[in-house]
Amino acid sequence: METTKFAIPEIIFGRGSLKYAGQCALRHGAKKVFLVSDSGIEEAGWVQRLMDVLAEAGINWIYYPGVTSNPRDYEVEQGAKFYLKNDCDVIMAIGGGSSLDTAKGIAIIASNGGKIRDYEGANRVERPLPPMVFITTTAGSGSDISQFCIITDVERAVKMSIITRTLVPNIAIVDPLILRTKTETLIIQSAVDALAHAIEAYVSRIASPFTEPQSLKAIDLIMRNLQSAVQTRSLDSLEQLSIASIAASMAFSNASLGAEHALAHSLGGQFDMSHGVIHPILLTSVMRFNLDSCVSKMADIGRVILNKNLGSDKETAMEGINKLDEFFASFDVPLKLRQVVNKDDQKHLEPICKMAVNDVCNLTNPRSASWQELLTICEKVW
Amino acid sequence: METTKFAIPEIIFGRGSLKYAGQCALRHGAKKVFLVSDSGIEEAGWVQRLMDVLAEAGINWIYYPGVTSNPRDYEVEQGAKFYLKNDCDVIMAIGGGSSLDTAKGIAIIASNGGKIRDYEGANRVERPLPPMVFITTTAGSGSDISQFCIITDVERAVKMSIITRTLVPNIAIVDPLILRTKTETLIIQSAVDALAHAIEAYVSRIASPFTEPQSLKAIDLIMRNLQSAVQTRSLDSLEQLSIASIAASMAFSNASLGAEHALAHSLGGQFDMSHGVIHPILLTSVMRFNLDSCVSKMADIGRVILNKNLGSDKETAMEGINKLDEFFASFDVPLKLRQVVNKDDQKHLEPICKMAVNDVCNLTNPRSASWQELLTICEKVW
Repeated sequence: METTKFAIPEIIFGRGSLKYAGQCALRHGAKKVFLVSDSGIEEAGWVQRLMDVLAEAGINWIYYPGVTSNPRDYEVEQGAKFYLKNDCDVIMAIGGGSSLDTAKGIAIIASNGGKIRDYEGANRVERPLPPMVFITTTAGSGSDISQFCIITDVERAVKMSIITRTLVPNIAIVDPLILRTKTETLIIQSAVDALAHAIEAYVSRIASPFTEPQSLKAIDLIMRNLQSAVQTRSLDSLEQLSIASIAASMAFSNASLGAEHALAHSLGGQFDMSHGVIHPILLTSVMRFNLDSCVSKMADIGRVILNKNLGSDKETAMEGINKLDEFFASFDVPLKLRQVVNKDDQKHLEPICKMAVNDVCNLTNPRSASWQELLTICEKVW
Repeated sequence: METTKFAIPEIIFGRGSLKYAGQCALRHGAKKVFLVSDSGIEEAGWVQRLMDVLAEAGINWIYYPGVTSNPRDYEVEQGAKFYLKNDCDVIMAIGGGSSLDTAKGIAIIASNGGKIRDYEGANRVERPLPPMVFITTTAGSGSDISQFCIITDVERAVKMSIITRTLVPNIAIVDPLILRTKTETLIIQSAVDALAHAIEAYVSRIASPFTEPQSLKAIDLIMRNLQSAVQTRSLDSLEQLSIASIAASMAFSNASLGAEHALAHSLGGQFDMSHGVIHPILLTSVMRFNLDSCVSKMADIGRVILNKNLGSDKETAMEGINKLDEFFASFDVPLKLRQVVNKDDQKHLEPICKMAVNDVCNLTNPRSASWQELLTICEKVW
């Protein structure tokens, strides 16, 4: 086997584990924590709870509340100035992917200088980052586990993927109690994001024996628990989704993703949409496009989804994809692009696909995908 | 779920990955590496190869060759003096469990002072350790992945378990090419050690959803590849065993072990034997002792070993254990204690079992085990 790398943060998982945040910061020498979050998490009371935990540990903090959904380049650049002005030494974020990615972007600029777009792509961050202790409030983005950071370049209207090993946080605290405050929509969108991570990582050109079992574990847990998590909001189901998200993140952080995420980044940048909205629309179409280049692996996915084997790998794979379509249809989510964008936005699809072929995620798609092929996929799901 | 923690090093895996050792040391600020190994690895040429890699990266080193099998307390204490005298900043070890555990022991004393026995048990190391970059030459001990360090206390003639998160190395380089120089005996002993790690971790009282899939993956890979690795010495089989060892180590490092390892530590301390010799003798007997306290989990193990389900969990579990006995018998290894110790050593079994009940591994055994019960197990396999 060619050299493969596997890096994940130290994970502290469990109901009530938020209480360890202070100890975690102290272990990384914190005197003044730079605390990143957003107004939703603040209103839910979690920012105050975290501040109490830090106070108990005798740690000072500066609060940076300026996180918006789908964080923009200028926002992280402003945040970095604020970080440097305040002489902080550890970055802590509590929130969904937007808060955590904002914190990562701030960490990059604060320690490496320049503009965030200088770091787009893989392995372009050279100097070490400040220690990062992250607390996720969703079970999907995986930013608390992964070496990915997604920031919108406003001028080009695209979500940039910034990928480098030093973006793996030092510690990820995952407290399923926090998930209880999430809306039904957010539970679905997060789980579907984790599912797309798991599937794209499994068939990635650089999947490894360290990432593959994590992908399959995540797919299995999401298929078995999402419906009950939405219906019952039981802590047990939410906890299982949370475990699934961690597994999916371990996989995609180290195996990267594929054409579906490349498209989702470009669509999301253009239309300011979250991943979770796009996956039910795009994922199975990209899987069908990829099928012939990875039949045996798609059959593994099918076996997990169907919990059985059909006559041939191809049949198992195809039936698995069909079942996934049914699964998405069982939730109240858009299944066509036209449901989430304006009718006259169809003209944007060509430039979006031209941008998507250059997204770093497209490099690891199991089948080479030209912009014309991506456009065909988008037109099929229009 | 109660709070569970999962910590592993960054892993760099693949044929030829030894070449990254210099870059890895540099990433941790190395100016002068403290390089630990033993004469066997030196004779096989790997120490020189590693020195060449360090030289290419412009890194100085001090070589500490004083590693013996089953490292002793006074040896690591001497090593720590040598480390401090030479102003080193990164500890690198290449070798099997003995070399890596010696390096860990040196790291503890060099940064925390005192005697190594001061740190016996869990979480007793307070100050941070120097960065550690480890290269394993076996596929079993797992010291390159784990938070365990096993050092013999000569006075008490016992292998002490020292367990703490900071003993997880920063980087583990696993290069399957290095495994080709191993003897048949060492391949078997290492794989059997990894198998025992995987099984004991799976049924441990603190197993988690993050450790369980790793255990099952390891069991599966070892059952399917050890025979062919021994017979053909093919690089593919050795590579699979290497992946299995990493998976097993991720599991036991975070889920700890059980009564079988507690006994193996005491027996090993008394008779200066490696784990790999003891597991085929003890493992299935401890599994039978534990069976009723974890039938469903033992059935999971049985399903992986047998690759099928029998009528009930109990049947599947029992047949799995029987199959494991057959598996051990298919190799030319001792299956009774009397084959590996002197006849009049039987009198030592009682003090050995009295020591084993206090081993930290015994705490996580799924069934409470008194010294009398451990003695009964030892007498059964005498």
